[in-house]
Amino acid sequence: MSLITNQTKGVYVIAVTPFLPDGAIDHSSIDSVTDFYFDQGADGLTILGMMGEAPKLTLEESVAITRQTLKRAAGKPVIVGVSAPGLAAIGELSHRVMEAGAAGVMVAPPSALRTDEQILNYYRNVIETLGPDVPVVLQDFPLATGVQMSSEVLIRLFAAHPSIVMLKHEDWPGLQKISAIRQSEADGSRRVSILCGNAGMFLPEEMARGADGAMTGFGYPEMMVEVTRLVSNGQRDLAQDIFDVYLPLMRYEQQPGLGLAIRKHILARRGAIAHASQRRPGSVLSSAAISEVEYLITRQEAKLAQLR
Amino acid sequence: MSLITNQTKGVYVIAVTPFLPDGAIDHSSIDSVTDFYFDQGADGLTILGMMGEAPKLTLEESVAITRQTLKRAAGKPVIVGVSAPGLAAIGELSHRVMEAGAAGVMVAPPSALRTDEQILNYYRNVIETLGPDVPVVLQDFPLATGVQMSSEVLIRLFAAHPSIVMLKHEDWPGLQKISAIRQSEADGSRRVSILCGNAGMFLPEEMARGADGAMTGFGYPEMMVEVTRLVSNGQRDLAQDIFDVYLPLMRYEQQPGLGLAIRKHILARRGAIAHASQRRPGSVLSSAAISEVEYLITRQEAKLAQLR
Amino acid sequence: MSLITNQTKGVYVIAVTPFLPDGAIDHSSIDSVTDFYFDQGADGLTILGMMGEAPKLTLEESVAITRQTLKRAAGKPVIVGVSAPGLAAIGELSHRVMEAGAAGVMVAPPSALRTDEQILNYYRNVIETLGPDVPVVLQDFPLATGVQMSSEVLIRLFAAHPSIVMLKHEDWPGLQKISAIRQSEADGSRRVSILCGNAGMFLPEEMARGADGAMTGFGYPEMMVEVTRLVSNGQRDLAQDIFDVYLPLMRYEQQPGLGLAIRKHILARRGAIAHASQRRPGSVLSSAAISEVEYLITRQEAKLAQLR
Amino acid sequence: MSLITNQTKGVYVIAVTPFLPDGAIDHSSIDSVTDFYFDQGADGLTILGMMGEAPKLTLEESVAITRQTLKRAAGKPVIVGVSAPGLAAIGELSHRVMEAGAAGVMVAPPSALRTDEQILNYYRNVIETLGPDVPVVLQDFPLATGVQMSSEVLIRLFAAHPSIVMLKHEDWPGLQKISAIRQSEADGSRRVSILCGNAGMFLPEEMARGADGAMTGFGYPEMMVEVTRLVSNGQRDLAQDIFDVYLPLMRYEQQPGLGLAIRKHILARRGAIAHASQRRPGSVLSSAAISEVEYLITRQEAKLAQLR
Repeated sequence: MSLITNQTKGVYVIAVTPFLPDGAIDHSSIDSVTDFYFDQGADGLTILGMMGEAPKLTLEESVAITRQTLKRAAGKPVIVGVSAPGLAAIGELSHRVMEAGAAGVMVAPPSALRTDEQILNYYRNVIETLGPDVPVVLQDFPLATGVQMSSEVLIRLFAAHPSIVMLKHEDWPGLQKISAIRQSEADGSRRVSILCGNAGMFLPEEMARGADGAMTGFGYPEMMVEVTRLVSNGQRDLAQDIFDVYLPLMRYEQQPGLGLAIRKHILARRGAIAHASQRRPGSVLSSAAISEVEYLITRQEAKLAQLR
Repeated sequence: MSLITNQTKGVYVIAVTPFLPDGAIDHSSIDSVTDFYFDQGADGLTILGMMGEAPKLTLEESVAITRQTLKRAAGKPVIVGVSAPGLAAIGELSHRVMEAGAAGVMVAPPSALRTDEQILNYYRNVIETLGPDVPVVLQDFPLATGVQMSSEVLIRLFAAHPSIVMLKHEDWPGLQKISAIRQSEADGSRRVSILCGNAGMFLPEEMARGADGAMTGFGYPEMMVEVTRLVSNGQRDLAQDIFDVYLPLMRYEQQPGLGLAIRKHILARRGAIAHASQRRPGSVLSSAAISEVEYLITRQEAKLAQLR
Repeated sequence: MSLITNQTKGVYVIAVTPFLPDGAIDHSSIDSVTDFYFDQGADGLTILGMMGEAPKLTLEESVAITRQTLKRAAGKPVIVGVSAPGLAAIGELSHRVMEAGAAGVMVAPPSALRTDEQILNYYRNVIETLGPDVPVVLQDFPLATGVQMSSEVLIRLFAAHPSIVMLKHEDWPGLQKISAIRQSEADGSRRVSILCGNAGMFLPEEMARGADGAMTGFGYPEMMVEVTRLVSNGQRDLAQDIFDVYLPLMRYEQQPGLGLAIRKHILARRGAIAHASQRRPGSVLSSAAISEVEYLITRQEAKLAQLR
Repeated sequence: MSLITNQTKGVYVIAVTPFLPDGAIDHSSIDSVTDFYFDQGADGLTILGMMGEAPKLTLEESVAITRQTLKRAAGKPVIVGVSAPGLAAIGELSHRVMEAGAAGVMVAPPSALRTDEQILNYYRNVIETLGPDVPVVLQDFPLATGVQMSSEVLIRLFAAHPSIVMLKHEDWPGLQKISAIRQSEADGSRRVSILCGNAGMFLPEEMARGADGAMTGFGYPEMMVEVTRLVSNGQRDLAQDIFDVYLPLMRYEQQPGLGLAIRKHILARRGAIAHASQRRPGSVLSSAAISEVEYLITRQEAKLAQLR
């Protein structure tokens, strides 16, 4: 059982949850998409996140998907999203997935939180519920949660709770936050791992500002693998060249609400999952949207061929 | 097994969930508080609502509390709150509590809903998930959910889904909504039962506008029983006299966030539950607040004595 | 020209802005309602607040209303609400009303503010815009603004900006906030005046917790005058008796959105203004609502007669 | 005086408001930036929008900027943003700018609107305030306003109010909305002009879906001019090639809150305005951010040179 730490680096793909057209879990595609992500170079996975349709699953389904993914991952680290309206549900799912071998859990704040004090209290309660030994990823995604955490509040949270080892960074704009956290570490604060979300839209800049990698689910995870590796190796220009090729599609996939339908369309097209289906309620791509995606993919493939 | 219908009338008390000081469920107090509510004249109960600390419970705990309450209620109707971020959780809990003998389920909208279209789609998905035979209470509580449903949208929902048999009315201001719904029924729309929440703060006016009763959890449920009965009997002045006596404390108990601590303090004081404890995270009454409550209770008792 | 200070006490009525049925400003009623408020015992007025329909006025209208009210107030203090989306508008209106003789200005936070840091920055910008000599009332009304300011943030704001001399307190629940601020003052923080809003619904408790008076616009301001005086004199029971008589109507008037229509109905009925009209967009009372108000007024008058 | 109509096509640049470093209006730069926009091929301008720092201006400043811009535009159409919390301010500014020769006014909904009914009522009040002869642009920008308008509501608004001649489309995702509106027009609804915002991030797709042009303020307006022209001419591939070159910088400029600082940096760098200054409160670019922008501009210029 490998646990994430505050030194964790690399690409953790936000995994989709595959469904059959009737809404049942597609267990065969869980295996194939897990293989796909690792074949593309992922260092780990994060399952049951927002884009993993977690709120549409029952507890037992969540545990079953975790067990199957962990088995297929064969020792590679798998983080599990456990965000829920109440501490009891967070505690129960966390306990069961950690027992099953998860590498850590990810917790986003509930949308009612407003003041710094409320945010600090919330995570204190979460950490008390989980106990000090469960590695926690704090998800900072104001566009989706409505909760705004200043750099100062994040730094206070990291100082107060050593088990928060990682930040899933997806504030927007958010580059200055990475710089502020790294500066506070230079000034003596405890280090945290920073993996970046936001569909990868700022990955080159985020890496250059000091992030440790990516945690998002763009349908071409090899982009994240290459860009993070190249920036880490100091090949910033080449990283940006690769990034630019994928950017038109990335931008298209990032559309809120619609993004998951686009992502699953791409993954199905690439053979990673059998069906693009979402469990209800889900969005459906119009034929116009499918044409737009296909057009962008064709261009992307041509430009990639040119680049190699 | 008795089910609620669109003719249901009376007082359905929003039940608290009793906890021991360490956060464990206080099973002994579940029995005593159930007895207490019925002894005060309740026609039914609604458990696992917002003030029942539902999000702090695991699924198995929710089912266990439902079973115990149903057993103790001995045939009296018990509605169960099943609101959750995802349809799977709503479906699973509904299935289990209806199987156990619940009278119906209550569903509040998730806070992300904005447009009329989104609201209509959401409840269509809920009803498809529950099937046509589960009686549903639609909870309309914008102060807590942030979702605003116009009278027109409610009337369209009632028309589209015959299994929505009841409205838990707690819009604020909301009296005109009751009048609008009753008017639409006079014009041919299907009738729904309307039970009123909002801590009882507008109960006399709501009854006079055509509501069928109350559904809230004020620590003196006998007020609701008396006021609804008196208004129904045409004794509006006496109803208002009774109401006015309780109003200062009702107002104090209605404070958002703090209200449950006040309510549990009153119920513990009255012997209905053993402890005023909330499961974490909960609010705690300061000594100043306790003095204020006690002062109001003393005055209330004196005025009641005077009135009889 | 009298300015408010951090020692200001008493009742500052939130004044309505009277309109003719066609939406024009009713200048004659500005005089009569000003007289009315002072005749009922007000110590001062606050004009152009949320319930003064300020956003419906042009700049020149706002200045004209201020000048007329100041003239009629004949030296009694008048605070002017200057909240606006931008600092330029706040600065311009403040400059002009202070020049005209206002006693201070009131500023509520714009609804986009979330983190403590954003709130602190906002008021720093406001104070820089106004200069250090304009006395400022900070309005803390989360129900209307959506902005939540913790006690700690308020105390930091008072410490940073000596020209913030007064808090218009209308958080809900908010009693603990008064206690926390007074405690911090006992521990050495600078004193601020605290006048309470929230339609007066918690006035006895607020005074007992250490507030300096009331700042709200209930149609019977004499209630506020009497209750604040009695609590200050140690006659808490009698204060509560008076309060209880008005509470049913106060509760009815407090309905968000509808409240101003009720308030203007009462003021028109009492002869303080000629018309209950609001400038568009405004709410209108249904005949059912008018009957409900009249019923409550009749009962209130009977109970008052009984009490004297 | 040219007015916009429901047939208006082309690129209307969202103009910045230039300031001197001390916060005073930079009148000389108003002329130069107006020239710059038209030199780059703009068909018209939209001034005093959200990115024009409109809420930071006094009424007189707004009118003065409008007059100067109209004079410099020398007959080219200029739309003026008039959004404000109250109808009186909207009416006053609209009256004065239309009198001065504006081509129309733009109105975004206030953030408190929730239900379809509230949105319909709001725009009815706006149109009554403006009168039937002022051409109105409806701004649909949920990310900034928090107000969600379904396609159905927009179509009802267009049907009810012939003076709403244009939609500033910036819902996200929003492509399907363009298709739905154009489909309703094919089915008999009145035509509206659709110009697209959202920083241009979806301009090729928007044009292909039936939009009439762009209305946004990206620092390289020639991109919008070229892309809209090329898509209109059926040269979609070339349009996308051009678009892709600018996309990395466009993405960077689109960051909420920070975007205007980036945009003004670019415009100052290009000589269109003398200073990148914003009036307080404004965001400031860190040196890291400036390096990132410069890096993207260098790459963009190289790629453009390659393309020609």
